[in-house]
Amino acid sequence: MFDKVLIANRGEIALRIHRACREMGIKTVAVHSTADAAAMHVRLADESVCVGPPAARDSYLNKAAILTAAMVTGADAIHPGYGFLSENADFAEMVEDHDLAFIGPSPEHIRMMGDKVRAKQAARESGLPCVPGSDGAVESEAEAEKVAAEMGYPVLIKASAGGGGRGMKVATSREDLGEAFRTARAEAAAAFGNPEVYIEKYLTRPRHIEIQVLADNHGNVVHLGERDCSLQRKHQKVLEEAPSPALNATQRAEIGEVVRAAMSRIGYRNAGTIEFLFEDGKFYFIEMNTRLQVEHPVTEMITGIDLVREQIRIAAGAPLDVTQDNLRIMGHAIECRINAEDPRTFVPSPGRIAGFHTPGGLGVRVDSGLYDGAIIPPHYDSMIAKLIVHGRTRNECLMRLRRALGEFVVEGVKTTIPLHEQLIANPDFVNGDYDIRWLEGFVDTLCDDD
Amino acid sequence: MFDKVLIANRGEIALRIHRACREMGIKTVAVHSTADAAAMHVRLADESVCVGPPAARDSYLNKAAILTAAMVTGADAIHPGYGFLSENADFAEMVEDHDLAFIGPSPEHIRMMGDKVRAKQAARESGLPCVPGSDGAVESEAEAEKVAAEMGYPVLIKASAGGGGRGMKVATSREDLGEAFRTARAEAAAAFGNPEVYIEKYLTRPRHIEIQVLADNHGNVVHLGERDCSLQRKHQKVLEEAPSPALNATQRAEIGEVVRAAMSRIGYRNAGTIEFLFEDGKFYFIEMNTRLQVEHPVTEMITGIDLVREQIRIAAGAPLDVTQDNLRIMGHAIECRINAEDPRTFVPSPGRIAGFHTPGGLGVRVDSGLYDGAIIPPHYDSMIAKLIVHGRTRNECLMRLRRALGEFVVEGVKTTIPLHEQLIANPDFVNGDYDIRWLEGFVDTLCDDD
Repeated sequence: MFDKVLIANRGEIALRIHRACREMGIKTVAVHSTADAAAMHVRLADESVCVGPPAARDSYLNKAAILTAAMVTGADAIHPGYGFLSENADFAEMVEDHDLAFIGPSPEHIRMMGDKVRAKQAARESGLPCVPGSDGAVESEAEAEKVAAEMGYPVLIKASAGGGGRGMKVATSREDLGEAFRTARAEAAAAFGNPEVYIEKYLTRPRHIEIQVLADNHGNVVHLGERDCSLQRKHQKVLEEAPSPALNATQRAEIGEVVRAAMSRIGYRNAGTIEFLFEDGKFYFIEMNTRLQVEHPVTEMITGIDLVREQIRIAAGAPLDVTQDNLRIMGHAIECRINAEDPRTFVPSPGRIAGFHTPGGLGVRVDSGLYDGAIIPPHYDSMIAKLIVHGRTRNECLMRLRRALGEFVVEGVKTTIPLHEQLIANPDFVNGDYDIRWLEGFVDTLCDDD
Repeated sequence: MFDKVLIANRGEIALRIHRACREMGIKTVAVHSTADAAAMHVRLADESVCVGPPAARDSYLNKAAILTAAMVTGADAIHPGYGFLSENADFAEMVEDHDLAFIGPSPEHIRMMGDKVRAKQAARESGLPCVPGSDGAVESEAEAEKVAAEMGYPVLIKASAGGGGRGMKVATSREDLGEAFRTARAEAAAAFGNPEVYIEKYLTRPRHIEIQVLADNHGNVVHLGERDCSLQRKHQKVLEEAPSPALNATQRAEIGEVVRAAMSRIGYRNAGTIEFLFEDGKFYFIEMNTRLQVEHPVTEMITGIDLVREQIRIAAGAPLDVTQDNLRIMGHAIECRINAEDPRTFVPSPGRIAGFHTPGGLGVRVDSGLYDGAIIPPHYDSMIAKLIVHGRTRNECLMRLRRALGEFVVEGVKTTIPLHEQLIANPDFVNGDYDIRWLEGFVDTLCDDD
């Protein structure tokens, strides 16, 4: 097992990784920008190294500085968390070239799944159900029209190198297609330096369902059930739950087995998440994330399995200590992402925490690097805490979540806690009756109330 | 179901009860002494009533004031928590006489189990294994000698009305007996106004194992496994765990069934705890607590069942929503009682909290009424927080506990957090190799280090 792990991240996920290491008896090295010198992950780690100024490109994305920090402190592995360098194949390669372990998949799998076109091809070849779409990149308007006519409107045009909704356009009819195609290419070129786009069938009101897997170096693959991440605003997940209220046990077992078989075929290793759209009982592969997800705790709550611990064990060459047969789904879990934002306008609200009190009691988990007096710098993602609640049933979970949100105190900055309180009181949400477009409408309603 | 519950307690348990009520959609009324006006349970409750000055006998033990508070606020039930009025049969009767529900057992069962001699008799009659002992009270030294000779030394002399170690003496031989008998009677008279004592076989190095039960008004009784509460200092529990490292599955199932049958025979209703000494594979009944125990969370963590919720449901006449067949023990849980005390001298350390930060992450639960700026008054018990940790195995649980204790920050008062850190690092504890006398020796060792 590793002796010392460098955590190449910040905020709650850096703390999350530190906790797993500490529980495994592994020493930790924190890295931080000058803006994060007093952050919780720095305070708790055994050692810390400043890797640059506030701008992420100069610190948390500074491959050479992070690698140097690992060498200087004698770390034997690097955990990249999510975001930043977690899906950067070049970084993973650099880490391995310096005889350090990268706690993640092989650089080859990062590359495969990071390229949307290759990913879809790999998914199809390994038996994952895919959205009907173009066979790779679509080069011209004429080709786009042909592809769209075959699969039927509406269609979605997406950047090959894309993510986060940029370079993504819907065409509802042949009339829309030309402009959507040109705009998507222009946006893709501007955002990713690569205008390449592809076309997919557009699903009207699908849910976002993703399957968590763990795969080791010894050919063992297990799936840990699904998460329902349909509640999104501008393609950012807001609240996630597991199991999904939309899936039955047969659907769950079937897609789980399909995913397991696919991961075996690909030879994947590490934790991974296979994202699907789900509509009319059918799954459609969207993408695979070759890293830990923000919403991984809901899976941990219903399985009892520490996913970060398993990532570390896998990277160290240990076999999985869970099998598909002894894995049990227990109860229900919901995660609220709490952002330092105005809950109406979503304008970020960085600043100094003037009061911080977390909810406690049965079934309540808080993952957060905040503390009384902490500074939320303006340079990074506004997600500052995750509140995760577990209950025997979805209803118990909802009641507990409502109670816990009511106890949560964050003073000095605005947060999205009030948004979550309104969201979980909504009858559609209570009934589990929502899809990936529902939250945008809900948010519009809140703003109309003013 | 009740509309409004008055919580006749303070501190973490008042908050615990509030949380269960809030999750059930029940409104809460807090009561408080003048010393607790700004306490967390008062801040979170829907309503609050001041019931008297700081001294507990004038506030939290003030039956008339508490009953009046319930009437004035229109509460329809009273939850007594633990301590204070929770085992006061007169109070339970008063509550019922005023057409309010007492969230607890019948006054008759409180009386039965509150009188040690009657309790032991009832236990024996209902099939619970008992420590060999005198058949009721022992009136004279001569009778004491006869009883002791029959069961063999060492023997324990205990106050009939006792608790907390007062009026309790060991005699290791016939030579000791006279003085032990006279001292026990004198202490009993002073502490409880009743000199009556009884005699039991004294076990040398037993463990304290207790079985949690739930019983409703419809004849349903379930047992929820055991807790090992052997780690005690001056008869006060310090750290509890479930399951016990000393029990195997057969012993667990057997004693569980014996307890279930006994509770059915007695006709008990409410949550309850049957305490045993356990030595050489045999159980010996000590007493039954007809209320929630401080250490109830470890049982909640391994079963997922909210014991306070079940108490409330039972008192409202609902049938248990768990059966013995669908109850599952999952993993391992440990609770540390964190006291505002000097961790070496155990001298209470009341005062103002100058900094408070609770550990978070997977498997970590904190039950505490503390907050930054809270005042710990000198008038009450020094237990200020419970840290409860859950893991798939005892070892996972221990590593998590160590990590969580390291994250816990309480500034402004001294706490027993350092004691727990030393305790869980001790090889005997790590091996589960301890009994009810072990902790006293461990504490002595710590003090010798100075």
